[in-house]
Amino acid sequence: MVYIGVDLGGTNIAVGVVNENWEIVAEASTKTLHTRPYQEVIRDMAVCADKALQKAGLTHNDVKSIGIGIPGCADEDGNVIFCTNLGWKDIPLRTELQKYINKPVYVGNDATVAGLAESYAGVSKGCSSSVFLTLGTGVGGGIIIDGKPWNGVHGVASELGHMILVAGGEQCSCGNRGCLERYTSATAIIRMAKEAVKENPDCAIMKKVNGDADRINAKTVIDAAKENDPVGVKVFEQYTDYLAMACNNVIQFLDPDMVVLGGGVSYAGEFLVDAVRRKVPNYILNKNLPYSEIKLAALRNEAGIIGAALLGRAAE
Amino acid sequence: MVYIGVDLGGTNIAVGVVNENWEIVAEASTKTLHTRPYQEVIRDMAVCADKALQKAGLTHNDVKSIGIGIPGCADEDGNVIFCTNLGWKDIPLRTELQKYINKPVYVGNDATVAGLAESYAGVSKGCSSSVFLTLGTGVGGGIIIDGKPWNGVHGVASELGHMILVAGGEQCSCGNRGCLERYTSATAIIRMAKEAVKENPDCAIMKKVNGDADRINAKTVIDAAKENDPVGVKVFEQYTDYLAMACNNVIQFLDPDMVVLGGGVSYAGEFLVDAVRRKVPNYILNKNLPYSEIKLAALRNEAGIIGAALLGRAAE
Repeated sequence: MVYIGVDLGGTNIAVGVVNENWEIVAEASTKTLHTRPYQEVIRDMAVCADKALQKAGLTHNDVKSIGIGIPGCADEDGNVIFCTNLGWKDIPLRTELQKYINKPVYVGNDATVAGLAESYAGVSKGCSSSVFLTLGTGVGGGIIIDGKPWNGVHGVASELGHMILVAGGEQCSCGNRGCLERYTSATAIIRMAKEAVKENPDCAIMKKVNGDADRINAKTVIDAAKENDPVGVKVFEQYTDYLAMACNNVIQFLDPDMVVLGGGVSYAGEFLVDAVRRKVPNYILNKNLPYSEIKLAALRNEAGIIGAALLGRAAE
Repeated sequence: MVYIGVDLGGTNIAVGVVNENWEIVAEASTKTLHTRPYQEVIRDMAVCADKALQKAGLTHNDVKSIGIGIPGCADEDGNVIFCTNLGWKDIPLRTELQKYINKPVYVGNDATVAGLAESYAGVSKGCSSSVFLTLGTGVGGGIIIDGKPWNGVHGVASELGHMILVAGGEQCSCGNRGCLERYTSATAIIRMAKEAVKENPDCAIMKKVNGDADRINAKTVIDAAKENDPVGVKVFEQYTDYLAMACNNVIQFLDPDMVVLGGGVSYAGEFLVDAVRRKVPNYILNKNLPYSEIKLAALRNEAGIIGAALLGRAAE
C-alpha cells in the first residue's frame, strides 16, 4: 500500500506517492492559483494525485490514505479552519477531495507535517517526542508526542513563532510585540544585519551584496560569520543567543527527546547548530541533567510531501 | 481500595489516605527535618501513612499505590533526581519506601501533582489536557496530556517559570535573566509594588503595611487594586499583562483544554482571572478561534495529597 502526500503552498501544489519506507516514489505538481474557487484547487490535488499514481503504475486501490499539509490550521474532521496565504477559511477539504478519491483524508499544519516527516524518516526517527522549529520568513513549530502530531485541543497549538520571547519588543506582523519569530526567523537575522551594517558599511556582509543592504539574506550574514567578519560574527552571535533561548523555552516546557531545527536558516548547517548547542546551557535550568538533543533537520523540501503522507499513518 | 498521597515539603510531610472519589479520608503529618539522612525522612513517610491508614480503619491490604509529590524532579523509576530545598540528589525514594510498605510507588513534581489533582478532582476535571500554573514565591507548571502528567523525556519538563519571557530582563535566582517567574510570581508583584510605592509613599498599599514596604505581599497589592487605589491598579495591570502573556505562551505552544491558575496569587479569585481573560486576546494569534479556557484552581492545600495519590491512578 502507498500513501498520498500533498504539500499545499501559496504557489504550488506538490503531490507525491509515498511508500511504506517513507520514500517518494512518484510526484506531480501544478500551480495553486489560490484566487480561484477552492473547489478547483482541491480538484487539482486529485488530478495531481492521479498523475503521480499513474507514474508509479498504481491505482486508487493501492492508496491507504491521503494527507495534506497546509500553511494554516485544520480541525480533526479534515476542515481547514483558516489558511491566511490562500485566503481560505472554513473549507471542507476532506469532503471535497473525497469526491475524487474516496480514501481517508487527513489535514495538518505544514510545520507539524514537516516535524512528523523528521520523526518517521528524518533526524528524529525513533524519538517518541520532538519539537520541530522551521526557521524561515517566520517561525513555525511542529510538536510530536508519542509519535503523533499534537495539534492542540482547538487545532491551534505549536504556533511557537508567536510565543512572546521579548515582552514589549519588536513589532510582529500578528499585532503583538516581541514574538519569538521576530528574533529567530530569517527575517530577524536580516533585520539585525541591516541595523549592524549601518555603522559598518565596509563589512564583509555589505561586500557580498555590493553595498545594497536590501539584498542581505540569512545566508549572507552566516557566510560572513563563517569567514570571521566581525559584523557577521556579531549578528550571528546575537541571532544564535535568541535561538538558544527559544530552544531553552521548548525544553523547559516539554523536555522532548529532540529539538529539530529546519527551514531556510538551518541550511547554514552544523555551524549554526553548534553555536546553539554551545549556548543552550547558558539558559537551561538544570544544566547538569540530561536534556533534549538539538539537531538539524535531515529532510528538505520533500518533508512536506512525506510528512503529509504520514498524517494517515500517525492516525492509525 | 485507597491510594496514599504524600505531600513532601521543605517543612512538613503531609500524608493522606485518598478514596476512589479522590477525597482525603484520613491524614497524618510530621516535620520534614530535611537535614537528617534521607532514610529517616522516608521512614517517617511510612510512619505517617500507617497512622493515616489506622485512623481510616484500613491496612496495607487496602492500599493500591503510593504517590509522592516532591518540590523537585523524579525519574520514572521513582528516584528523586534532585530536590533543591531538601538538598536531595539521586535519592532512591521508591526503593527506600517499599522497605516499609510494599506497594507500587510513584514520584512526581509538586506542581505537576497539583495539576493532576485539578484534572481529576478540581476545576479541570474531564479535560483531556490542561496546564497548571502555580503562582507562588516562584512559578511552577503541571502539564496534563491525555489525562496523564507529562514529565518530559528526561523528567525536567513543565518548568514553565524558567521559560524566558523578557530576554535580557530581570535577574532570576536560576542565573538567567527574564524568566517568566520574575514577572508572574508573588515575588514579582511585590517587586513591582515596591518600585511603584517609592514615588507614591501615601498610596493605599503603603497604608495597608503601615509605611513598611518590606511588609508588602501579593494580597496587599491586589486588595489595593480592588479598592481602586491608583498605584494598586497600576501594579495589578502590569502584573496581569505579564500573566496574560504567560497564558498566551502556553496556549500558542500546547493549546490545552484549560489553563489553570493556582498558588497563593490565585487566591485573589475572579478579580485576577477576569483581568487575565480580558487581556489574553491582546496577545493570542488566532483571536477569532476558540482557545483554552482560563480558570482558577478549585483545590488548595489538599491538591498536594490528592494529586500525589493520583500518580498511581494516572499510571494505570
